Amino acid sequence: MKFCSACGAQTEYRIPEDDNRPRHICTQCNTIHYQNPNIVAGTIPVHEDKVLLCRRAIEPRHGYWTLPAGFMENQETTTEAAMRETWEEAEARVNIDGLYAVLNVPQIDQVHMFFRATIIDGMFGVGVESLETRLFSEQEIPWSELAFPTIKKTLQLFFEERRLGAFSVHVMDIVRSPR
Amino acid sequence: MKFCSACGAQTEYRIPEDDNRPRHICTQCNTIHYQNPNIVAGTIPVHEDKVLLCRRAIEPRHGYWTLPAGFMENQETTTEAAMRETWEEAEARVNIDGLYAVLNVPQIDQVHMFFRATIIDGMFGVGVESLETRLFSEQEIPWSELAFPTIKKTLQLFFEERRLGAFSVHVMDIVRSPR
Repeated sequence: MKFCSACGAQTEYRIPEDDNRPRHICTQCNTIHYQNPNIVAGTIPVHEDKVLLCRRAIEPRHGYWTLPAGFMENQETTTEAAMRETWEEAEARVNIDGLYAVLNVPQIDQVHMFFRATIIDGMFGVGVESLETRLFSEQEIPWSELAFPTIKKTLQLFFEERRLGAFSVHVMDIVRSPR
Repeated sequence: MKFCSACGAQTEYRIPEDDNRPRHICTQCNTIHYQNPNIVAGTIPVHEDKVLLCRRAIEPRHGYWTLPAGFMENQETTTEAAMRETWEEAEARVNIDGLYAVLNVPQIDQVHMFFRATIIDGMFGVGVESLETRLFSEQEIPWSELAFPTIKKTLQLFFEERRLGAFSVHVMDIVRSPR
């Protein structure tokens, strides 16, 4: 941020009074422009014993497999965002079965939230941000071709707990590089 | 947003190509400025059978009681944010016992996340954003003087489940006005 989005004047990066970390502050109107982490919301869309993955048609990680997920928008709830992304990327309507994983990715200022979900009528398609979509059994998951560490971690836990017969809710930190 | 934070030129509010909702877009450098919900992270700080609340020294809801919570910062995790806010508002160090509630507040573009927590050594103080802090038993909670619906809902569930002897994780929507 170089310019104030309220008045167009230049900003400077300094610690405001009564604060303890630097912010972008307008040199003219003194507006403080806070920057905060973004939520990425998605689902683990299940049909029978399989999980629906999407092969990415966009960067980053073009060509790699992901769970349907994307940036939560203003005026939505986390579940609405997860369901919308599942429709946009995989053309699947889902019922949400519960929150499953909250993954902190502090090095890129993101929090990823995945919900367990059941695909309605087992129907899905290929959204514009996907090259293809496919149902995978646990044995078929392309582990070496997954797009992000958050996807790998979420799927590992999901299959492990499914074998044990009980899902819990996980809060995890992804501390290494996300790619 | 009226001006581009990258180049200082005026922005316009329109739907970009390949998108389906309006964004602030720079009329000169074409940067698209996305706006997304913010996370508010906090704790339910417990000592013996009591919960620590803070009476707010700041607006909104000056003088009303709240759980310690505040905006998550870049480069932190949700649990780090919750612990930092608990220190800043109530000068309590806590151990996190688990995620408890995710409350969607879409009308103000926020997601509130509360963690169950235990106050280390039962020690606490009064942070600069608090008028006072105090441990409350369930019977003592000032229900009519709580600052926000998310606080009331979280405390109601917490005490109800504590009586039942089992905590789960809750995802809820707060759909009415937040104040």
